[in-house]
Amino acid sequence: MRIVKLDDTSKKNILNDLLKRSPNNYDKYADSVNEILQNVKENGNKALFDYTLKFDKADISAENIKVTKEEIEEAYNSLENPELVDIIKKSLKNIKDYHEKQKQYSWFDSKTDGSILGQKVTALARVGVYVPGGKAAYPSSVLMNVIPAKVAGVDEIVMVTPPGKDGKVNPNTLVAANEAGVDVIYKVGGAQAIAALAYGTESIKKVDKIVGPGNIYVALAKKAVFGYVSIDSVAGPSEIMVIADESANPRYVAADLLSQAEHDELASAILVTTSTELANEVSKWVDFFVSKLKRNEILTKSLENYGYILVADNMEDVIDIANEIASEHLEILTTNPFDTMTRVRNAGAIFLGEYSSEPLGDYFAGPNHVLPTNGTAKFFSPLSVDDFIKKSSIISFSREALMPLSDDIQKFAKAEGLTAHANSIRVRFEEDDNNCQ
Amino acid sequence: MRIVKLDDTSKKNILNDLLKRSPNNYDKYADSVNEILQNVKENGNKALFDYTLKFDKADISAENIKVTKEEIEEAYNSLENPELVDIIKKSLKNIKDYHEKQKQYSWFDSKTDGSILGQKVTALARVGVYVPGGKAAYPSSVLMNVIPAKVAGVDEIVMVTPPGKDGKVNPNTLVAANEAGVDVIYKVGGAQAIAALAYGTESIKKVDKIVGPGNIYVALAKKAVFGYVSIDSVAGPSEIMVIADESANPRYVAADLLSQAEHDELASAILVTTSTELANEVSKWVDFFVSKLKRNEILTKSLENYGYILVADNMEDVIDIANEIASEHLEILTTNPFDTMTRVRNAGAIFLGEYSSEPLGDYFAGPNHVLPTNGTAKFFSPLSVDDFIKKSSIISFSREALMPLSDDIQKFAKAEGLTAHANSIRVRFEEDDNNCQ
Repeated sequence: MRIVKLDDTSKKNILNDLLKRSPNNYDKYADSVNEILQNVKENGNKALFDYTLKFDKADISAENIKVTKEEIEEAYNSLENPELVDIIKKSLKNIKDYHEKQKQYSWFDSKTDGSILGQKVTALARVGVYVPGGKAAYPSSVLMNVIPAKVAGVDEIVMVTPPGKDGKVNPNTLVAANEAGVDVIYKVGGAQAIAALAYGTESIKKVDKIVGPGNIYVALAKKAVFGYVSIDSVAGPSEIMVIADESANPRYVAADLLSQAEHDELASAILVTTSTELANEVSKWVDFFVSKLKRNEILTKSLENYGYILVADNMEDVIDIANEIASEHLEILTTNPFDTMTRVRNAGAIFLGEYSSEPLGDYFAGPNHVLPTNGTAKFFSPLSVDDFIKKSSIISFSREALMPLSDDIQKFAKAEGLTAHANSIRVRFEEDDNNCQ
Repeated sequence: MRIVKLDDTSKKNILNDLLKRSPNNYDKYADSVNEILQNVKENGNKALFDYTLKFDKADISAENIKVTKEEIEEAYNSLENPELVDIIKKSLKNIKDYHEKQKQYSWFDSKTDGSILGQKVTALARVGVYVPGGKAAYPSSVLMNVIPAKVAGVDEIVMVTPPGKDGKVNPNTLVAANEAGVDVIYKVGGAQAIAALAYGTESIKKVDKIVGPGNIYVALAKKAVFGYVSIDSVAGPSEIMVIADESANPRYVAADLLSQAEHDELASAILVTTSTELANEVSKWVDFFVSKLKRNEILTKSLENYGYILVADNMEDVIDIANEIASEHLEILTTNPFDTMTRVRNAGAIFLGEYSSEPLGDYFAGPNHVLPTNGTAKFFSPLSVDDFIKKSSIISFSREALMPLSDDIQKFAKAEGLTAHANSIRVRFEEDDNNCQ
């Protein structure tokens, strides 16, 4: 694995390289995505089913679009590894426990003048979860997208996922969806499924929010319908950064870097360290593991494209580039990881110490594995219960509470030229309407 | 003002009418907006200044783009109403007090097996606030957009606002910005200012998030840069809904409806009531106030377009349409407004009782007046401190804590075909690497 000295030039090059992976760079597909969206918006089911035949080669209709109870039972019986059900149940419990702690509550403050100010928290009514088909059908992602919505108290969770040519859905997906408590599953995918969720069709009722990962068409479709519905953040390729000093175990670091590099050729794996010795050791271990691991073709390509071992002069430079890259996953393997963590401002999930390897977070620890990618951890958060609630302000004033503010509000409104605003306060305290402006 | 019986047909028509006001319907401007964005992205300041000359007729350069201390002092001396400074200070205090209550804190949970799970809350580093120029330069909006960012602890708050032909900015805006604690103000507006904030130019550093209202070009530009940066929700025209029974004072209701109808011709004002008598009285009072108020041309047009008095058979139907329309502002003037409030699911801000008139919320009560419009209160929230923070998951496991999960994580990873994920757990507990898959 390549080792690069961290300096201003290499830093700039790496930051530029990483940004090339952004879904923002795929605007060339925007026209075809918009055409699909418009067609489904106008023609509903017909367009939806036509696209499903075209892209997924599956013959879906209003009669068979919903996954049936029988199909779910069949999925349980056709799991490659029947142990998966129990593993899913255990993982689900941890995810649920963690997300329960994120719950937010309505609150109010009252004063003895009869005024109340507050904030009411309400769960979204109806949420759509996109689940990719084929190779990227990850049951763990189903859990991670559905459980926060469940914990938030969403009334109805609908899932869309592309069927195979045989009209069937991956059994792992169905079992995870059923365990997580999805209410209904529709066999459609791609931009057309996003359109159906955003605008509604004869078979699929419009939702309030769409979450879940997908290919570039799905990502662009989600961005396009933002405003009609809410969406989670636009997901890019996976990434891991490991911050390590000389105390780190190079064999662990190498294995952890590869855990994300294996996702796809656009995945990024970066070690930043102050230790040249560690850099060399990790590089050797990476080469060794790549030679052994099944997905070595993908590993080799993603490391060539976006894999780096960066050697920095000091810990300040390490932290600095970590904050600039704002990695989806950040492992800290230093002598005092908690101290290092306080200095990290931007990362999706932070893994501390040598037994907190990234896959623990992907599958089992409890925190969400849907995380901001491609530098967006500077402003986006992990998927959470927050994504499935919304708030309303509460304002209740008495005459006694409003009166002392009456003049100021009217003056403020008039300073903005909004006299009907002023009038709405005035009428409460003046009977003579000849003053209204 | 027109009175309509609330039934399935009128409901459908009104919902359709209101959606016509959505900023989502202005895609025809998307191409010119994208051209502006692309030009500023590629050519930085040059493009930014060219557009400012073209659209604002103002000659702005790297030398005069920043508002100076002297210009801010001048603004204080040139206020039409010098009392405004004190009024702004009082309003600011209330807004700050309310938003302080929204603060969220980092948390963690630890177990005696050595595991820690948590969530770290970090303020965004750099935020851009858009403030419209000309008629729509509302100092109250400056406060509402800036104070939540301040309370969240944002390091740097930059403001952009279009200058007049003379290169100057509205003094009300400057005073409000200065009082609220804006760090730097740039004299640029429109889609070009959004581009500068999203991509950066020689004079303006890229921000993490852009908030604030603007015209349709600004709204479309914000939507287009979503992903490069975060944005607040896409703002549409203002709206008020009043829910009232026979106990409501028709003179107050009429004045309150007009307080939003005066914003612009696309603004919407709707009363829904169970009382025909109230409907008739409110209609008369509306006509009376319109005849007296300064902005009667706008009032007349917006009422013609999007003003309705709806008479419903019962309170259930009233609540039902309130939840479907999901109004930006909702006033509840019923005998027991708190009971009614519990039944309301969707609204930006809810005003309870006859002394909680909407302009109280616009200017003084404390809750934010930047609210979800056009039905988006089904999934968006008022602007808040939440908009200016982001979270990172924290995961720290000991060997003791990871060991019992080791097998399950490896099996889950393998069920998804991700063997390098499994390997990263395995290496911690097995020395022999011949097993790695």
